Amino acid sequence: MSSIWITGGKGFIGRHLAQFVAGNSQTVHGLGHGAWVEDEFSACGFKSWLNAEIDFASLSHLAASSGLPDIIFHLAGGSAVGPSIQNPYEDFQRTVETTARLLEWVRQHSHQTRVIGASSAAVYGSGFSTPIPENTHAMPFSPYGFHKAMLEKLFDSYRETYGLKLGIVRLYSIYGPGLEKQLLWDICQKLEKSANGEILLHGTGQELRDWLHIKDTCSLLWKVATLPDLPQVINGGTGKSTSIFDIAHLVSDAWGEKHKVVFNGIGRKGDPASLVADTTLSQQLGYTPSINIQDGIKGVVHWYRERSR
Amino acid sequence: MSSIWITGGKGFIGRHLAQFVAGNSQTVHGLGHGAWVEDEFSACGFKSWLNAEIDFASLSHLAASSGLPDIIFHLAGGSAVGPSIQNPYEDFQRTVETTARLLEWVRQHSHQTRVIGASSAAVYGSGFSTPIPENTHAMPFSPYGFHKAMLEKLFDSYRETYGLKLGIVRLYSIYGPGLEKQLLWDICQKLEKSANGEILLHGTGQELRDWLHIKDTCSLLWKVATLPDLPQVINGGTGKSTSIFDIAHLVSDAWGEKHKVVFNGIGRKGDPASLVADTTLSQQLGYTPSINIQDGIKGVVHWYRERSR
Repeated sequence: MSSIWITGGKGFIGRHLAQFVAGNSQTVHGLGHGAWVEDEFSACGFKSWLNAEIDFASLSHLAASSGLPDIIFHLAGGSAVGPSIQNPYEDFQRTVETTARLLEWVRQHSHQTRVIGASSAAVYGSGFSTPIPENTHAMPFSPYGFHKAMLEKLFDSYRETYGLKLGIVRLYSIYGPGLEKQLLWDICQKLEKSANGEILLHGTGQELRDWLHIKDTCSLLWKVATLPDLPQVINGGTGKSTSIFDIAHLVSDAWGEKHKVVFNGIGRKGDPASLVADTTLSQQLGYTPSINIQDGIKGVVHWYRERSR
Repeated sequence: MSSIWITGGKGFIGRHLAQFVAGNSQTVHGLGHGAWVEDEFSACGFKSWLNAEIDFASLSHLAASSGLPDIIFHLAGGSAVGPSIQNPYEDFQRTVETTARLLEWVRQHSHQTRVIGASSAAVYGSGFSTPIPENTHAMPFSPYGFHKAMLEKLFDSYRETYGLKLGIVRLYSIYGPGLEKQLLWDICQKLEKSANGEILLHGTGQELRDWLHIKDTCSLLWKVATLPDLPQVINGGTGKSTSIFDIAHLVSDAWGEKHKVVFNGIGRKGDPASLVADTTLSQQLGYTPSINIQDGIKGVVHWYRERSR
């Protein structure tokens, strides 16, 4: 049985990952922002939860109470493009400063620990029309993307200079039950409130995204963390592109009533036309996502309707 | 007359640059680490000196006392590869955190200010045998290099997202009178102490470097800062390569006594075989260095001997 830590464990991915990893008979400890009573964090699979900044004091505190970790999933960080444009310095602190402190603590105190960092397809920026391989050099266009790119540089620095065991997963459009924000949440809210059988969405609907279900995200993160050799960086996507137009109609179909979906045609700053993973590397490592987008969206709509009862 | 700020102004480049810029009839204010009495900072060309961390409080304090700057030369940061390997987190704080705070302060308080950041050829890493153009993607191999690459990402982020007026100069091997560390200083010290007419140096002597005199460094920084359009990034080098072997013999010749220079053959971690600038871009912008390496080294040896009298 291994000891697993999850930073930013109270977030959407962290809660699911704790449950997934605990279900694999591992001991999971979490730390990050957020007050959380034991009943709740236990239900998510956490044996302990430390409500704290990711810094030297809190990391050593957790090590004193629960021993050194075998694996750390580093999910703490800024959570979205929009807020990072509004407040770039906060996003910097959440994504970059936490990473600098975590890796320095690992270097000093727990050199054998594997650290898996959550990066984002936002590091690639825009201008793509085909699946993006990991070795693509590009220019992010939001502080969120730049800061994730800086997180990756810190991983490179500590791996190249000190031989730490570090790997990066660049996550694409992660979705699933429990995510109370972003596109699917917005569509469900609009469907629920729609009076005239019509919903209005931003953009053209033509933007292509690569949707990875949270269960597939967890199995990918766990697979990467337990590989004999950690990949420096790996895309976390399915390789399949689905337009926002198709997503909206899949949600509407799953909702079960006839709705008309209208797009306002106005693209938002920070929205590239296409962000789809080249999955050659993850396939070579034996990873295949298991949940198709139709089933995944049905599950989200089901969760959404159950939770409001 | 413009108002110029220099962060890290008490360092080798900062002191020379203040003198150069003040000599061009500009008003220069400095901030950074280091207690400094007025006689001394005035002699370097500074009208005021603020001994402080680069943070929101000190930047606003300086703005309240001296007005908003037209140009900021951001020289604060870690200073060398070796110390960054010993203490990477300190180097991160000095290079990356100062930059995040400075650019955020400029975004909030002084949107029209031009900021010129000092990066380093260390961002390129190793494996080169020909001059390196600015658009080269490479892997640094020391925390110093990685952190400079992260500084550049912050510049990219604030320029792309907020339209700030930002430029980066990647400095190669900067040298000149007043630099009390690094290769020329070490050679002078060894020549001074040599009892048997022999000096021993690290490495093979075959490493190629691009030596830019501090006077040429200052004129390049000033030229870049006053261009109509700031270059995103520009190499700060001469395009000429000189081996460490040749440098050692130039210093020895300038010293004026016969010495034998011996290399121990052991390369240091962090020392690439060749780091030489492709100067196509700086030539297009009308910049040509004026001091050849022979004259530059004579000046350093002269300064070294005068200062110890």
